[in-house]
Amino acid sequence: MTSLSAYNQLLNHVKQTSALGQIAGVLSWDQEVMMPPNGASMRAEQMGALAVVSHAHQTDPRIGDWLDQIDEASLSNLEKSNTRLVRRSYQRSIKIPASLSEELARTTSHAQSIWAKARAANSYADFAPNLSKIVDLKRQEAKCLADSGANLYDALLNDFEPGMTTSVLQPLLENMRPRLTALREKIAESNHAQPTLTGPFDTDAQMKLARSFADVVGYNWDSGRLDLSVHPFSSGTGNDSRITTRVGADDPLDCLYSTLHELGHALYEQGLPQDVALEPICSYVSMGVHESQSRLWENKIGRSRAFCTWLWPRINEAFGAGTVTSADELYRIINRVETGFIRTESDEVHYNLHVLLRFELERDLISGSLEVADLETEWNRRFKRDFGISVPDAAHGALQDVHWSAGMFGYFPTYSLGNIYAAQLNDTLRKAAPDLDEEIAAGKTETALHWLRENIHQKGSLVEPDTLIEQVVGQKISAEPLLNYLEDKYSELFAL
Amino acid sequence: MTSLSAYNQLLNHVKQTSALGQIAGVLSWDQEVMMPPNGASMRAEQMGALAVVSHAHQTDPRIGDWLDQIDEASLSNLEKSNTRLVRRSYQRSIKIPASLSEELARTTSHAQSIWAKARAANSYADFAPNLSKIVDLKRQEAKCLADSGANLYDALLNDFEPGMTTSVLQPLLENMRPRLTALREKIAESNHAQPTLTGPFDTDAQMKLARSFADVVGYNWDSGRLDLSVHPFSSGTGNDSRITTRVGADDPLDCLYSTLHELGHALYEQGLPQDVALEPICSYVSMGVHESQSRLWENKIGRSRAFCTWLWPRINEAFGAGTVTSADELYRIINRVETGFIRTESDEVHYNLHVLLRFELERDLISGSLEVADLETEWNRRFKRDFGISVPDAAHGALQDVHWSAGMFGYFPTYSLGNIYAAQLNDTLRKAAPDLDEEIAAGKTETALHWLRENIHQKGSLVEPDTLIEQVVGQKISAEPLLNYLEDKYSELFAL
Repeated sequence: MTSLSAYNQLLNHVKQTSALGQIAGVLSWDQEVMMPPNGASMRAEQMGALAVVSHAHQTDPRIGDWLDQIDEASLSNLEKSNTRLVRRSYQRSIKIPASLSEELARTTSHAQSIWAKARAANSYADFAPNLSKIVDLKRQEAKCLADSGANLYDALLNDFEPGMTTSVLQPLLENMRPRLTALREKIAESNHAQPTLTGPFDTDAQMKLARSFADVVGYNWDSGRLDLSVHPFSSGTGNDSRITTRVGADDPLDCLYSTLHELGHALYEQGLPQDVALEPICSYVSMGVHESQSRLWENKIGRSRAFCTWLWPRINEAFGAGTVTSADELYRIINRVETGFIRTESDEVHYNLHVLLRFELERDLISGSLEVADLETEWNRRFKRDFGISVPDAAHGALQDVHWSAGMFGYFPTYSLGNIYAAQLNDTLRKAAPDLDEEIAAGKTETALHWLRENIHQKGSLVEPDTLIEQVVGQKISAEPLLNYLEDKYSELFAL
Repeated sequence: MTSLSAYNQLLNHVKQTSALGQIAGVLSWDQEVMMPPNGASMRAEQMGALAVVSHAHQTDPRIGDWLDQIDEASLSNLEKSNTRLVRRSYQRSIKIPASLSEELARTTSHAQSIWAKARAANSYADFAPNLSKIVDLKRQEAKCLADSGANLYDALLNDFEPGMTTSVLQPLLENMRPRLTALREKIAESNHAQPTLTGPFDTDAQMKLARSFADVVGYNWDSGRLDLSVHPFSSGTGNDSRITTRVGADDPLDCLYSTLHELGHALYEQGLPQDVALEPICSYVSMGVHESQSRLWENKIGRSRAFCTWLWPRINEAFGAGTVTSADELYRIINRVETGFIRTESDEVHYNLHVLLRFELERDLISGSLEVADLETEWNRRFKRDFGISVPDAAHGALQDVHWSAGMFGYFPTYSLGNIYAAQLNDTLRKAAPDLDEEIAAGKTETALHWLRENIHQKGSLVEPDTLIEQVVGQKISAEPLLNYLEDKYSELFAL
């Protein structure tokens, strides 16, 4: 076989693998958004069967043969990137036995409905047996993946942030704690009055306004859709990039800013280079970079004074004249700071402290220094230490997030990496587009989207995430821009 | 390996195959109901990839080994049925090359959106190249399946109606033609006044009433859902059995009776024995029997005088007092007879003539005696001959049905088999439940559902379709009950 023929056969095969992965995404979306309640156990069987055949496909020994037969020197840069990505995922795949892969898929599919019921019943004990099973399976998985003696948690982290290690991540996140805590305490001590919104707010009007957010940011409705789910998420890629949100009569901002967050994710997916659809390079480069896109739209653009100029009259139009008295009041409302229990409801100041808590807990669960039986107690103890308030119940504590029920260990830190990258990207974008705020105030975001398309979206997975960020912002990963942004913004807001 | 061990491994494997088949069902449902328009080409890739891995799974040579190692004498009747069904589908699967299976899946997935556009543009020529490709692939498939010298069309027919042959089907259907034509002509000559509904009809009220139909027949909402699609269909099985309908402001009956039709299908799927979920016996026995369930609910129950007693006040409640003046008027409205072009809008008298047309055309396409290029002309010629009126355009002719774009050749005759079985089953049910009409008039259908659950649904695929029908009704397949039912009902209605 020639090198070219080997490359083409390999590419055809991995495009099928991508398509199978997309199918799993459609099934998960359906499960969260459309599936009737009694369908859960059959869906778990479907996910299990798909995992079996996907695993067989991903570990097909012909992949190794094709990789051996490819003469890398003869490849274009684009082909080299594809080959590098296939080699990495193939080497990962052949380390996991099919039985473990299948058991993980079935267990986590099943566990998500158990988790939802346990959260509704506010009972950690109802979920703990399933979580134990999942942690055990994830430890097994990490042992299969990690080189002998290597950090188990890094093996899981690398599924979401290729190349990232605990040795880089731990100091990066830990070093944010003193400045974030100091900022939080200064804000609390300022006793600054914070305006709020008083409901109820029509839920249809919320959805209508959420849809107009999608129009403003340039979301392509012919390549996506917006639905309701318990936990907002984005799903799919390219020409089928869907998002979900949720509505509650007492708080329209949860719906609106969840939507804007998921739109940021979906814009990234819609902007991936569709001329190489299904190829490994036509994929987001890391979850951290993915999260940087959602956070840039949600916070750096959506929570700016400029965006409030656009949004203020539309809030009053949606929910009644006088709902908010000025753009400045709106800016203060959407940037309220309050110590709370729920990560997804958290303000920018507290958010990374929530992530730190989860990162350290899951790191300890995987290393074995923390047992599932002790997780709720330990969550509550550390939360009190970091946030100064006591968790009242499991739904406001260890049961609040879907991630662990889905087996997503190593995912949480990418939220903070996203915030860090977003601040670095935002600084660079603002230099490239000095009139951006004026445009945003007029509901125009083409400049921002075009810049992101060109610098991030269209790059797909051509280079590694740290390289991509460094190429765009001209510096290595650093929390300084994020901390400076937070200190500047909130010092002004709270007259610190 | 012991026989028991071989059986258990086989069963585990084929349950995964079933789960993969269900996944294809979820993807198709999503494609018709939820998918954004630009998602079509990526969905085709997904269906193609799933077909590849499903085909590999279905043709795994271990299946042959396991079948060889099973000592049938040691199996229970239930296990014997499972083994018989696996043997049949395995023998079918290994005859089809993976490349053909994949090409069929990709081509038909793609063709469905082409067909929809061609129908909207009313241009048969826009669809003909795709249909040619599909017919060619289906001929190839039939050649792989049929024994040397055997009828190619029978091979495709058997995918939908196991054991049925053209030699049985052709006279069964053909012999209906003179009595149906005579009835149709007598009705036309009677010049009997036929009442109609005058719109517009609120579409939300239509959906609400459609949902109450589901409540009346005992549809389990926790195991299903109702959505909108271009062409109503049912999808899924067991605890996730979904249906779709459509609404139009000028005709609420299309929505209501399409819903009732699909409910009949979904009740069958929800009633399959869930203690053996995913096993081969936990499947509908044939499409003809499936259609008998939809037709029994739609026509034998839903278009009865008794059902009109229940429905009449609810029509007026939904669409305004005086919409219909009496239950008798409603009975005449829902049983109007009119020669039309569209199969899915056809009355009971004309319906089987529509099926005969399609059956003979597709039989001729597969045998090669008719070419795709000539299909529209031939459709129009034969339609004029059978119905006495001229097809005005492709949307009212050869482009009206989705089936051929989905590669479903051999499916159409099962509609008439369904009508034939439904009449045989209805005669037997009415003898077993003499008070049924009184119950139906009060919106109670538990007796009918219980009887169908016990005699049809719970039987799954334990025995062959012809055996099942004969066991329940005590006679072989016969069109007499259907023809008698139609002649009795419409002679009374039109005072013939």
